[in-house]
Amino acid sequence: MQRIPILQMGSCLLVTIQVDLQDQTALALQDDLAAKIERSGARGVLIDISALEIVDSFIGRMLASISGIARVLDAMTVVVGMQPAVAITLVELGLSLDGVRTALNVERGMHLLRAAQAEAATDDAAE
Amino acid sequence: MQRIPILQMGSCLLVTIQVDLQDQTALALQDDLAAKIERSGARGVLIDISALEIVDSFIGRMLASISGIARVLDAMTVVVGMQPAVAITLVELGLSLDGVRTALNVERGMHLLRAAQAEAATDDAAE
Repeated sequence: MQRIPILQMGSCLLVTIQVDLQDQTALALQDDLAAKIERSGARGVLIDISALEIVDSFIGRMLASISGIARVLDAMTVVVGMQPAVAITLVELGLSLDGVRTALNVERGMHLLRAAQAEAATDDAAE
Repeated sequence: MQRIPILQMGSCLLVTIQVDLQDQTALALQDDLAAKIERSGARGVLIDISALEIVDSFIGRMLASISGIARVLDAMTVVVGMQPAVAITLVELGLSLDGVRTALNVERGMHLLRAAQAEAATDDAAE
């Protein structure tokens, strides 16, 4: 079975999805990601889907589920690189990716994560 | 045909190789990478091969070739995330990945690229 690699960059984890996800691969990714967040203490997860030409309800649920798991482990998830045609289809299908944050590309996603971390640090300092 | 996504982060490009490379995919990656270096003016390329369980002479040649193309476009290539078993097999097979720089993981690879860029900037200033 194929496993999707998770790359660590500072306090962020980066996952690039390149293949059509099968159930087993998606489950393995959730497990690996949860384990890696716990081990590394990462505060952010970036998921790049620029290689995906179709995002169906299965992938939508998986993204929402990863995002939920990361949230309870105190990490924020940002999905980046969605192709314009994918965005159009998602909206037409009524799939709104509830609870999943998105950004145009990796750089903007990283910026979003850093801003959220800086804000959290300020809040901590104020308490 | 599958295309491998190339992510831009600052002045670096990141490629994660997750699938067994076929000739066509490898050629497309070379083309895409050369075009992206030209368009973005990137100074470094990180290639993550942590998902590969086998690196044969074909992949070795491809990595050397990408590294060579990037070099003439004024970008440095670092291959990161090689599995220990892959490193052992490479040496046993006598494949030494000539002209390809390696680093343990993405973070160290990024560090290597930044150090090289800082050095180049100092050299420019000294002239």
